[in-house]
Amino acid sequence: MYSFKNDYSEGAHPRILGALMESNMEQLEGYGEDKYTVKAVELLKKKCGRDNIDVHLLPGGTQTNLTAISAFLRPHEAVIAANTGHILVHETGAIEATGHKIISIKVNDGKLRSEHVRAALDEHTDEHMVKPKLVYISNPTEIGSIYTKHELEQLSKFCRSNGLLLYVDGARLGSALTSEENDMKLSDIAENVDAFYIGGTKNGALMGEALIICKECLKEDFRFHIKQKGALLAKGRILGIQFLELFKDNLYFDLARHSNDMAKILKEGLCEAGYSLLTHSPSNQIFPVLPNEVIEKLEEKYMFYIWQKVDEDNSAIRLVTSWATKEEQVLEFIQELKRI
Amino acid sequence: MYSFKNDYSEGAHPRILGALMESNMEQLEGYGEDKYTVKAVELLKKKCGRDNIDVHLLPGGTQTNLTAISAFLRPHEAVIAANTGHILVHETGAIEATGHKIISIKVNDGKLRSEHVRAALDEHTDEHMVKPKLVYISNPTEIGSIYTKHELEQLSKFCRSNGLLLYVDGARLGSALTSEENDMKLSDIAENVDAFYIGGTKNGALMGEALIICKECLKEDFRFHIKQKGALLAKGRILGIQFLELFKDNLYFDLARHSNDMAKILKEGLCEAGYSLLTHSPSNQIFPVLPNEVIEKLEEKYMFYIWQKVDEDNSAIRLVTSWATKEEQVLEFIQELKRI
Amino acid sequence: MYSFKNDYSEGAHPRILGALMESNMEQLEGYGEDKYTVKAVELLKKKCGRDNIDVHLLPGGTQTNLTAISAFLRPHEAVIAANTGHILVHETGAIEATGHKIISIKVNDGKLRSEHVRAALDEHTDEHMVKPKLVYISNPTEIGSIYTKHELEQLSKFCRSNGLLLYVDGARLGSALTSEENDMKLSDIAENVDAFYIGGTKNGALMGEALIICKECLKEDFRFHIKQKGALLAKGRILGIQFLELFKDNLYFDLARHSNDMAKILKEGLCEAGYSLLTHSPSNQIFPVLPNEVIEKLEEKYMFYIWQKVDEDNSAIRLVTSWATKEEQVLEFIQELKRI
Amino acid sequence: MYSFKNDYSEGAHPRILGALMESNMEQLEGYGEDKYTVKAVELLKKKCGRDNIDVHLLPGGTQTNLTAISAFLRPHEAVIAANTGHILVHETGAIEATGHKIISIKVNDGKLRSEHVRAALDEHTDEHMVKPKLVYISNPTEIGSIYTKHELEQLSKFCRSNGLLLYVDGARLGSALTSEENDMKLSDIAENVDAFYIGGTKNGALMGEALIICKECLKEDFRFHIKQKGALLAKGRILGIQFLELFKDNLYFDLARHSNDMAKILKEGLCEAGYSLLTHSPSNQIFPVLPNEVIEKLEEKYMFYIWQKVDEDNSAIRLVTSWATKEEQVLEFIQELKRI
Repeated sequence: MYSFKNDYSEGAHPRILGALMESNMEQLEGYGEDKYTVKAVELLKKKCGRDNIDVHLLPGGTQTNLTAISAFLRPHEAVIAANTGHILVHETGAIEATGHKIISIKVNDGKLRSEHVRAALDEHTDEHMVKPKLVYISNPTEIGSIYTKHELEQLSKFCRSNGLLLYVDGARLGSALTSEENDMKLSDIAENVDAFYIGGTKNGALMGEALIICKECLKEDFRFHIKQKGALLAKGRILGIQFLELFKDNLYFDLARHSNDMAKILKEGLCEAGYSLLTHSPSNQIFPVLPNEVIEKLEEKYMFYIWQKVDEDNSAIRLVTSWATKEEQVLEFIQELKRI
Repeated sequence: MYSFKNDYSEGAHPRILGALMESNMEQLEGYGEDKYTVKAVELLKKKCGRDNIDVHLLPGGTQTNLTAISAFLRPHEAVIAANTGHILVHETGAIEATGHKIISIKVNDGKLRSEHVRAALDEHTDEHMVKPKLVYISNPTEIGSIYTKHELEQLSKFCRSNGLLLYVDGARLGSALTSEENDMKLSDIAENVDAFYIGGTKNGALMGEALIICKECLKEDFRFHIKQKGALLAKGRILGIQFLELFKDNLYFDLARHSNDMAKILKEGLCEAGYSLLTHSPSNQIFPVLPNEVIEKLEEKYMFYIWQKVDEDNSAIRLVTSWATKEEQVLEFIQELKRI
Repeated sequence: MYSFKNDYSEGAHPRILGALMESNMEQLEGYGEDKYTVKAVELLKKKCGRDNIDVHLLPGGTQTNLTAISAFLRPHEAVIAANTGHILVHETGAIEATGHKIISIKVNDGKLRSEHVRAALDEHTDEHMVKPKLVYISNPTEIGSIYTKHELEQLSKFCRSNGLLLYVDGARLGSALTSEENDMKLSDIAENVDAFYIGGTKNGALMGEALIICKECLKEDFRFHIKQKGALLAKGRILGIQFLELFKDNLYFDLARHSNDMAKILKEGLCEAGYSLLTHSPSNQIFPVLPNEVIEKLEEKYMFYIWQKVDEDNSAIRLVTSWATKEEQVLEFIQELKRI
Repeated sequence: MYSFKNDYSEGAHPRILGALMESNMEQLEGYGEDKYTVKAVELLKKKCGRDNIDVHLLPGGTQTNLTAISAFLRPHEAVIAANTGHILVHETGAIEATGHKIISIKVNDGKLRSEHVRAALDEHTDEHMVKPKLVYISNPTEIGSIYTKHELEQLSKFCRSNGLLLYVDGARLGSALTSEENDMKLSDIAENVDAFYIGGTKNGALMGEALIICKECLKEDFRFHIKQKGALLAKGRILGIQFLELFKDNLYFDLARHSNDMAKILKEGLCEAGYSLLTHSPSNQIFPVLPNEVIEKLEEKYMFYIWQKVDEDNSAIRLVTSWATKEEQVLEFIQELKRI
């Protein structure tokens, strides 16, 4: 059975394992103070086009979200997120466990816009309600859509003029930034948001996310929060070595582009076979709508999630491609689909 | 400069990297539901000599402590720990950040005994004070001492008859269990405590700790807590593969024994050179007391922590050996010491 | 200006002040262990028709909700509430501040039913999501509707067969139980729910809510939680004396009935004047829909909240009556309305 | 049996009940926005000799401590307190429940001095430990001692030059400020600390504490925190009316002075009878050391706490006087003591 369930089904890109291997017996400082992490941090600053940002490497996405958000907010401050937001449903209440409410905003395409945020602000008028403070978005979103530069700029402008922080969950940021519909670079993200993370786990690393803190007042004492939340690895080198390898040339973006390319082939095949997609997704997660009996047949040979029921006879499934997805498997999947 | 600063200065034991390499391109389930993790869990149960225990693999020690302790306690319940306890001082208030007080007990040798715990119980008499509920010990302790089977049994008996949970931080459990003064096996730990963890990070793994939950009522829903605290790695395989490699034969214990052996050579050398030790330590951390000028000289060639001032002229340093410590380096250190 | 803004605009019912006065110079035990509190607790048990319940007196509603809910839940467990639920929006994230998510369910009449709860359960399937555990309802609801006995029994049955706790916020429980549409007694509430509170603040007390814990396993150590959350008044007598006075005869219900009667006169007057109500409310909060210019005129003489915009020209306002509302003021209001 | 157990055995000073009575049927704004609270706040500012402070009225001491401290600190920041500090032992871990560690410092006379704080700072050197941020002191302390102006100034100076906040728990501040050894006024406190509270519960109010926030950056959004922690009473008037009555002339200080006077008579009587005191206490709590058989005899007629064992035959007891303590009872106690 070949799996399109997610983009973390394989281990790490071979170059990453190679880098871990090569440096393995060197004695290095612990807790992310080793030379590889220092270099990775410098490199990431350069890639973001700015020197006045702080970079921290953490093991996973939920942990990055909860560590950052709880560090940034005072107890009465809340997060605003789209109803599809990962932190809202799929992180076991990790943000609430640190004491903060998430205000859910219903959107259709996974993307928050300033009018959504304004509506939330308008509803929170006094001290009997939480104070909305941080706007959480994902790029790409959980349903595969991506933000344009214009959209991000508009949202950023609104947040800044309303005293709100803007935070981007970039678990699959590579896929967004290498999408053919994308018009942003890392430096555009860094310029427009207060903090964001560049996901490694879903783009070829064993694990690891690079949190970028852009806003000055959010930087202070951040390592205390990493340690307190259990995210400061003794062998922090593991994260530094991986991010160094991913960014020292363009490996990170090459891997992401490959996953997008594979998704594109899938989309084209689905289209040719006459099927539609539930959402417009120019990234590495796609949501084809298929007849239930077709899905059942496919399940004999492939692994994937059934996303949602569309009507009595049809459901949307989620297909995720990755740096490790093989083109022949993608082509075979399409043939199989057409055969059915 | 050679480092005796800690036991996580190198990467992972080569066999571990090898195992990661070998399985790297296999597509596996995420979140610790892969076949390697399943096997590792089964193996660890066997090694603990019991089937009715739950095993969870988490990335690091602080995270294991905070996830377990916050899952086990109700909001008003507190932890009792020795004043040297790692959670008390060196985890940035991680336990308090989950809402629980730690009651500190002053002890001389790092070990909690039933009389210490009783004293804490006697002082907490009503609802104006927290309710002591979980006794936290480390084996070996933070100053290198280890518990005998009799000591653990006594403490366990006291805890059970007083409605207290007993939890062992086993960040260096391998070193304790392979110490020449040790008279316990993994199964003795499992029999006498309610939960404990077997540390991987400090004994040859890239990272990873195996939490063993022995008490039935503590098991329910534990994976929710792992996820909520950010400790559920998408590529949980990394932990499973490592623990499988460490325990499929006796690698885990072999590595720990080596670190103890290296510490023993150091101790003997220090003794021959006429120096005393601050604490009785039969494990892989030793605390020699040296004249300050000797320390300064040693610092030119070696890295280690200065542990505490002993008097005007002397201080105790901490030397840590590990699975990766080379015998020739140890011998050279002693020669250097004698030369000075 | 006469106020229909809420039911806590005046101080306490004179009999309550009298009782405080009379006992004032007696020396009594602190922290709710005085004889008046003991008697009030016994009396409340009797009124609930059960001996196997625990009764605790706390200063306010938000504090009762947060103390109870955080005591009842483990860290990964969540609350299910109607979108109108007081804890969801109007308590500044008090529940989330104790670490728990509230799952919001959209309902039309303020009332949760088993199908709503089932839908929430169906959406929470594994450890990547919180575990729904406590169903929070208000009676009357925040929009004035009340539960029938049958509705409560159905919900109770569903909760019990699904391992869920059922909790009733009874900030205005007196109004619900003396409504002409009500078919329940205190004992029916006590029988069908796991915990609930009888509100004093909004029914004639200076402040104070009586929390009733019915489910055995929720009772243990509850006073620790009261103290930890700052709700254990040194002069707990204040609460005991008030609840004793309210329940020693039927004062509590008499006051509530009066507030309902005043609301009824208002409703009839509004109806006669040709206006409709936004919600069906047989309790002491009513929500008439009025033309905006009428509202503006009324605002010159009366205080009340504008609840929501209905269309370009009309809005719903909230009128709240209380134990202290004077019939002549109600009649005058109606005359004023008709005059306009 | 007459009670010297504490200073909250009686209800409220009659003038306070009178004021509640008089204003009882007025319709007032809720949540502390009524005219009485507004006046009380203005009055307290005047009494503190400063206009640029914020004043909030909260129901109780534990709640004031937890609300203020959790609002002032970021998640990794900790409190420094004397080992006798009320928050450390007698508030059921309320501060830890909001996520913050309390660093305990052993002192002999209940008072923290800059050298103690410096020692705590010296031990907390990096992100593996909490960051000490707020120094908590009580005046008078829990063992009856009081701070001199010089001591407070020194501590204040140290805190300010080390980026620490200074907070005073003034549960019995009236007793400190009217002690014959006191050389401070309210304005001296306000000048030297960042926040403090003026206790009402233990000095004649039904309940209520006035929190004064002096430091500008701590003021923002404080009412959100009061609401979130359940401390915003719907009938906030109760607190405003009481503090207005206590401070509109010198009632607050008169009551406190009376309690000190009663304690002084007790001390003199004890001295004459040949007994010593455990601590030097110029305030309304004293700790005489008495033979155990004398204590047993006294217990037949009086209520008080046995504070601690001194040796085999002697123990210290705690005697607390209050605004309501009657001189004849004090004299009778001494006679009784001499008779024994």
